[in-house]
Amino acid sequence: MSIDSSRRSGSTRQQDFAAVLERIAADVRPLAGQGRVADYIPRLAQVPADRFGMAVATLDGDLFRIGDADEAFSIQSISKVFTLTMALEALGGDLWQRVGREPSGSAFNSLVQLERERGIPRNPLINGGAHVVADVVLSHYPDARGRLLAFVRERADNPGIDMDPEVARSERETGYRNAALANFIRSFGNLHNPVDAVLDFYFHQCALHMSCTDLARSFLYLANSGLCQRSGETVIDAERAKRINALMLTCGTYDAAGEFAFRVGLPAKSGVGGGIVAVVPGVLALAVWSPGLDEKGNSLAGAAALDRFTTLTGLSIF
Amino acid sequence: MSIDSSRRSGSTRQQDFAAVLERIAADVRPLAGQGRVADYIPRLAQVPADRFGMAVATLDGDLFRIGDADEAFSIQSISKVFTLTMALEALGGDLWQRVGREPSGSAFNSLVQLERERGIPRNPLINGGAHVVADVVLSHYPDARGRLLAFVRERADNPGIDMDPEVARSERETGYRNAALANFIRSFGNLHNPVDAVLDFYFHQCALHMSCTDLARSFLYLANSGLCQRSGETVIDAERAKRINALMLTCGTYDAAGEFAFRVGLPAKSGVGGGIVAVVPGVLALAVWSPGLDEKGNSLAGAAALDRFTTLTGLSIF
Amino acid sequence: MSIDSSRRSGSTRQQDFAAVLERIAADVRPLAGQGRVADYIPRLAQVPADRFGMAVATLDGDLFRIGDADEAFSIQSISKVFTLTMALEALGGDLWQRVGREPSGSAFNSLVQLERERGIPRNPLINGGAHVVADVVLSHYPDARGRLLAFVRERADNPGIDMDPEVARSERETGYRNAALANFIRSFGNLHNPVDAVLDFYFHQCALHMSCTDLARSFLYLANSGLCQRSGETVIDAERAKRINALMLTCGTYDAAGEFAFRVGLPAKSGVGGGIVAVVPGVLALAVWSPGLDEKGNSLAGAAALDRFTTLTGLSIF
Amino acid sequence: MSIDSSRRSGSTRQQDFAAVLERIAADVRPLAGQGRVADYIPRLAQVPADRFGMAVATLDGDLFRIGDADEAFSIQSISKVFTLTMALEALGGDLWQRVGREPSGSAFNSLVQLERERGIPRNPLINGGAHVVADVVLSHYPDARGRLLAFVRERADNPGIDMDPEVARSERETGYRNAALANFIRSFGNLHNPVDAVLDFYFHQCALHMSCTDLARSFLYLANSGLCQRSGETVIDAERAKRINALMLTCGTYDAAGEFAFRVGLPAKSGVGGGIVAVVPGVLALAVWSPGLDEKGNSLAGAAALDRFTTLTGLSIF
Repeated sequence: MSIDSSRRSGSTRQQDFAAVLERIAADVRPLAGQGRVADYIPRLAQVPADRFGMAVATLDGDLFRIGDADEAFSIQSISKVFTLTMALEALGGDLWQRVGREPSGSAFNSLVQLERERGIPRNPLINGGAHVVADVVLSHYPDARGRLLAFVRERADNPGIDMDPEVARSERETGYRNAALANFIRSFGNLHNPVDAVLDFYFHQCALHMSCTDLARSFLYLANSGLCQRSGETVIDAERAKRINALMLTCGTYDAAGEFAFRVGLPAKSGVGGGIVAVVPGVLALAVWSPGLDEKGNSLAGAAALDRFTTLTGLSIF
Repeated sequence: MSIDSSRRSGSTRQQDFAAVLERIAADVRPLAGQGRVADYIPRLAQVPADRFGMAVATLDGDLFRIGDADEAFSIQSISKVFTLTMALEALGGDLWQRVGREPSGSAFNSLVQLERERGIPRNPLINGGAHVVADVVLSHYPDARGRLLAFVRERADNPGIDMDPEVARSERETGYRNAALANFIRSFGNLHNPVDAVLDFYFHQCALHMSCTDLARSFLYLANSGLCQRSGETVIDAERAKRINALMLTCGTYDAAGEFAFRVGLPAKSGVGGGIVAVVPGVLALAVWSPGLDEKGNSLAGAAALDRFTTLTGLSIF
Repeated sequence: MSIDSSRRSGSTRQQDFAAVLERIAADVRPLAGQGRVADYIPRLAQVPADRFGMAVATLDGDLFRIGDADEAFSIQSISKVFTLTMALEALGGDLWQRVGREPSGSAFNSLVQLERERGIPRNPLINGGAHVVADVVLSHYPDARGRLLAFVRERADNPGIDMDPEVARSERETGYRNAALANFIRSFGNLHNPVDAVLDFYFHQCALHMSCTDLARSFLYLANSGLCQRSGETVIDAERAKRINALMLTCGTYDAAGEFAFRVGLPAKSGVGGGIVAVVPGVLALAVWSPGLDEKGNSLAGAAALDRFTTLTGLSIF
Repeated sequence: MSIDSSRRSGSTRQQDFAAVLERIAADVRPLAGQGRVADYIPRLAQVPADRFGMAVATLDGDLFRIGDADEAFSIQSISKVFTLTMALEALGGDLWQRVGREPSGSAFNSLVQLERERGIPRNPLINGGAHVVADVVLSHYPDARGRLLAFVRERADNPGIDMDPEVARSERETGYRNAALANFIRSFGNLHNPVDAVLDFYFHQCALHMSCTDLARSFLYLANSGLCQRSGETVIDAERAKRINALMLTCGTYDAAGEFAFRVGLPAKSGVGGGIVAVVPGVLALAVWSPGLDEKGNSLAGAAALDRFTTLTGLSIF
């Protein structure tokens, strides 16, 4: 059976996205500066609250940008999608013996759930699950951090991307809750590397510094059945690309995943640095950034921008 | 901006679905009879375990059937989608003051969550949420049960659909856990009608008796931006249809919603009677039935059939 | 081995307790009127907030009273000690197959715990446990309510004690949380009588109307190794009397049992009507009443009075 | 008011306890060897399972011993009573701003409870609470470990008592769950010293090596209103001694505190090394040791021995 390969992209024309971004920026910029900028480490607290940027990268090879789309910021939890991709390539389906695929409900539940389910984090996009994923990556790649950097630079076509060592160091010094989680998971035997090594890698992945343009480009393989748009090489097989999208939809935005699916209707992953990346399968990837967070920890202006984007374009998976 | 209206349906031809259903039936029928048939009430326990049926209703107006697709069964929780549609029409967005939109995590969490969130059930597709939805329907329609029957008969184009009074009576007699939930919600003031009236309506909606054909047809409006395929009338506005799909994806299959999104990639709603309905937005609705349940309470052969369906057709939202 | 039977009572003289009560009343009366009077049912809300009474009944046969010691009030949860005594006599140690003996932690935990422990309430002095106890009493005595009344009248030597039908009716009408608990326990098969019958008996036991004098006298058997002080008859065997005292110490004052043991150091049981009864094994029983409750649901002035009592007399079990 | 100072001790004669211990040893020794010896660290796993010892130290200055009463073992959690005493002396009542006094319910609840109560452990005798207590001791005494050793040697009148460095090292290497707890508490700001320093001290206190004789003697101050029986000096004031006893009764034996209060009726503290210490206020302290544990983590033969002890002597606080 052949399904129309054009899918959702249909007759979408270039000029459309430029206009859409301008309209969104006009509508949403008043929100930039609202919400609470993450301040648990100095580097994040220093970011000016009123930043707003957005970038759309299409499978047709076009790139649309607005605002501070080329200013790099701390991508934080968005990095979990990259390490998940690497761990899935390393372990394949065996990964699911060590981490679940269900939404976690509230943050509150995460420790209870770990206790009930004997150290198996509920999904790879919550912190505990990302620790297990980091552990898999560490076990599989001799130079895990270098491998991650190379992966991200290739995806974004930007060799200048790096990790901010000061962010990583600050995270390490104040990351008591992550240390609690990792030790707890280790107590069930579900981390194989030393807790400190896992946390060190984890805090470095969170310290990746990227712009909206970098992020939109680097997520394109998830809109493209796992293929790199530029080189045509297979980043991950099509089935797994779909499944990562499914995980982002159900688990990508902390305890607001249901709300995001409901309002935005796209697979997305957010970070406390204020970034959110979303995927329209078969069409495009987009990234938005504004540092002020809502009470669930997602970028306030960013979520509003995504909401506007699907309303204006009709691009939703539902 | 115009998005190609053909979307996912593209060049799918009639004969394709007929062949797909035959292949699925051949692959999956060995599973029919496996799993555990719900036996908490006599009527459900009497259903032969080896039944298997499937029906696909397309927006082009075609219907494809295989196996026991025209045998009626107890739709149970699938009914929650119908009452949610009615409650959304009645209350609009105010409904979300009384029920959340987040996945619930495990069944275990539901009572804890109700306590923490002061009687606001996490979403309208878990039992507690469905009680609140039933309460809204009861408050809004003088003859709520008659209105629900009329709604379902219209959707399925089958005036013969009815509720099985014996199922409703048995549910009432043994439904201690539902009674616990409803009383608990009432203790927070989030039910306005008497607990007994809410439970009575709820047990009757679960007792709706429908076939795969009925169900596939009756869910078509959710694949069609809220429009009735036959009459063209608006069942619910396009935005809300999308949002019900989002809720089904994140919350429609009990504690296996993440797993379902991951494996199947379609909005779906299951019931302990062994039915599952799924929606491919812009293309079709389909229903599958087999009474044996897996440990999460979803039809074992039914879930396998949906998995095969998306693999064979490539029809997934991701 | 003989242990000095005089134990704690030693040379305590009559005049001492009279003086102690006067001093307590002087110290504590300013607190009467503070706290929140229970108002979930009209009858409780009508009680004047500034009432304060206290009574001490010694094993030597003396009775000391102060303030409103002879005004009857709704004993509420204090009744759980009476029904526990009856259920232990009926079932013996088999009772512990159906209810636990551990403190429950916070109220919040009660539903979680019931789920985890398959419908076995954590102890007989929380509501769920008292429902199971009520169920045992109902199964064992043809006229359970009459039997309870006779038991209480005998213990207090007061044939005028009765249940307040209006309190029982109001409890029934608003007792959604108790209905939730009882239905939940029933869903695990741990109630054998109809839920309505169990709740009806439970709400009537809570509606017992007694004074401090009645309560101090009626708890004397727990200070006297299970023997009735007046008649010498065995109310319950010595071992079980000790164990009921242990349960009161660890579970008798809601989520403040640890705090009570810490501050007061005596087995005690409180009720939302503002009463608290305490036992000094081998010496006396005492009751205090003041309707204003602290945030844990215990009488504010009553708890202060008990604290003063053990400080002034040195009567503590530790 | 004078309360008979002889209290429970009355006419108990020396020869009685000797006979009681012999009878208990005869009854209980068959249980020694049953249960599971703690094996999470090598040193504990090496202890022969069939050891059984018991010692009673009375306020009259007598000591009664049977079996392996003079063999030193790892006291583990029993040490929490010593550090609690030191922390109470250091901080006084302010300690209760940082740790609660309520029983914790099941182990399962400890992390949930910490989350709900913002890092305030429920009581000082669960692990999290003991971390806070260790933190207080560390902040208050420049040489905390030396101070603890001196305290214990004085109490037991045995300068040979020491910590087993290998036990401490092993605990450190495998103590992931304690590391999880301490980091979690630190994330709420309720530890002031570095997590590693707190854990180091905690693992050393658990590594104290003492015999039943040492333990019975060293707990005598809690039976003696806080006074040292030998020297007459005040170890802790009388009020606080009573309160530590109350805490042991409600929280001293993990999730079996209610059961212990019910069966044994004495304040007690147990450790996974197989030791249990109990206090009869005004009369004596006793210690029992047998390494096989029941499913709650308390010495199986030890609990049975305490049960027999209170049955044979009638010495119970209830």
